[in-house]
Amino acid sequence: MADRILYGYWRSSAAYRVRIALNLKGLDYQQRSVHLVNNGGEQHSADYSQLNPNQLVPVLVDNGLVLNQSLTIIDYLDEEYGGGLLTPKGKEQRYLVKSMAQDIAIDIHPLNNLRVLQYLSGQMGASDTDKQNWYRHWIETGFEALEQRLNKTRGRYSVGDEISLVDVCLIPQIYNAKRFGVDLTPYPNINLVTTSLYGVEAFIQAAPEMQPDADAAG
Amino acid sequence: MADRILYGYWRSSAAYRVRIALNLKGLDYQQRSVHLVNNGGEQHSADYSQLNPNQLVPVLVDNGLVLNQSLTIIDYLDEEYGGGLLTPKGKEQRYLVKSMAQDIAIDIHPLNNLRVLQYLSGQMGASDTDKQNWYRHWIETGFEALEQRLNKTRGRYSVGDEISLVDVCLIPQIYNAKRFGVDLTPYPNINLVTTSLYGVEAFIQAAPEMQPDADAAG
Repeated sequence: MADRILYGYWRSSAAYRVRIALNLKGLDYQQRSVHLVNNGGEQHSADYSQLNPNQLVPVLVDNGLVLNQSLTIIDYLDEEYGGGLLTPKGKEQRYLVKSMAQDIAIDIHPLNNLRVLQYLSGQMGASDTDKQNWYRHWIETGFEALEQRLNKTRGRYSVGDEISLVDVCLIPQIYNAKRFGVDLTPYPNINLVTTSLYGVEAFIQAAPEMQPDADAAG
Repeated sequence: MADRILYGYWRSSAAYRVRIALNLKGLDYQQRSVHLVNNGGEQHSADYSQLNPNQLVPVLVDNGLVLNQSLTIIDYLDEEYGGGLLTPKGKEQRYLVKSMAQDIAIDIHPLNNLRVLQYLSGQMGASDTDKQNWYRHWIETGFEALEQRLNKTRGRYSVGDEISLVDVCLIPQIYNAKRFGVDLTPYPNINLVTTSLYGVEAFIQAAPEMQPDADAAG
């Protein structure tokens, strides 16, 4: 077994991205579950804070190198292990892929993170409906833009016919969208790409419900 | 004059990052102001949406190549123009810099964007105090973690003695922190780095109040 440990949580989108990338590259890894809700959130424990002072998942420890931030981890895997590159080398495609992935990972996802929802209900007294509307709003805003960009970039996958970092970020975001009841019918490009990706083993095996720490009640 | 146009806004942190990077690399550019408040937000105009369907600033058009997402733009500048690299090549420093920059650009900044504050007051009816607390909370959460990481990485700048992408992301975040009255005294490492960076011409010239579209009343 490789000396490679992923600290994650089955439902964390950012950990989900890293699982997909590891699978696409055929890299073995061990999983350590950091339960984001139990025990007041295990990401706040002293041990985990040592690994990542931001107290967020995931962290990948690869041959002793401790890495946080899913996009950094995936860049590392791309640069260190090669194989099918998730960020292509060609100039135009390279920056297209990076920016579209960041459109999801920066402009949608951080707003819908668990700690943000907890703050909205805790400190701001938001109702469940308010939180659901919030969640859907940021996904819909981001998906409208992504749908337009896909008009120009889509092949079998988000950017042409090779799987890229955009796809790696998209599928966890689709998981969240479905979980919060976002209506996906206005996004035919997104749906076509999603259907292609749902057939890829690396994505299937990375799905939240396939993980050892998946909790039907969670 | 170079064929290089930055669509930005004086107070946008993401545009501020790109201005710093352009200055550090000594690259000429023209500025086009996209006023984020006037006219219902010029970033929503048909013309600008063509450039960036996400309707966010900045966009850099460099010799006809249209790039969005500040981190992507800065990667592009690093890879295309070389000079002092904002993301170093050495393995450990490389991923350290990327992840620490993302700790700011992903885990703090998107939560405090103008559109988010507008949503909080508009759709959620948050008071000014609620919004201010929200803003400070995410900066303080992020700065606590950054302060710890700097214990191990800080030299004259955030990571050693060379200016990096972390510094480029830090200074706009400090600007926001001061604007919203965050008490910075608990962060001595951050303050030392900030003091160093305040003396660097590329940072001075990129400051919001130095920009042609700066508006004392805005």
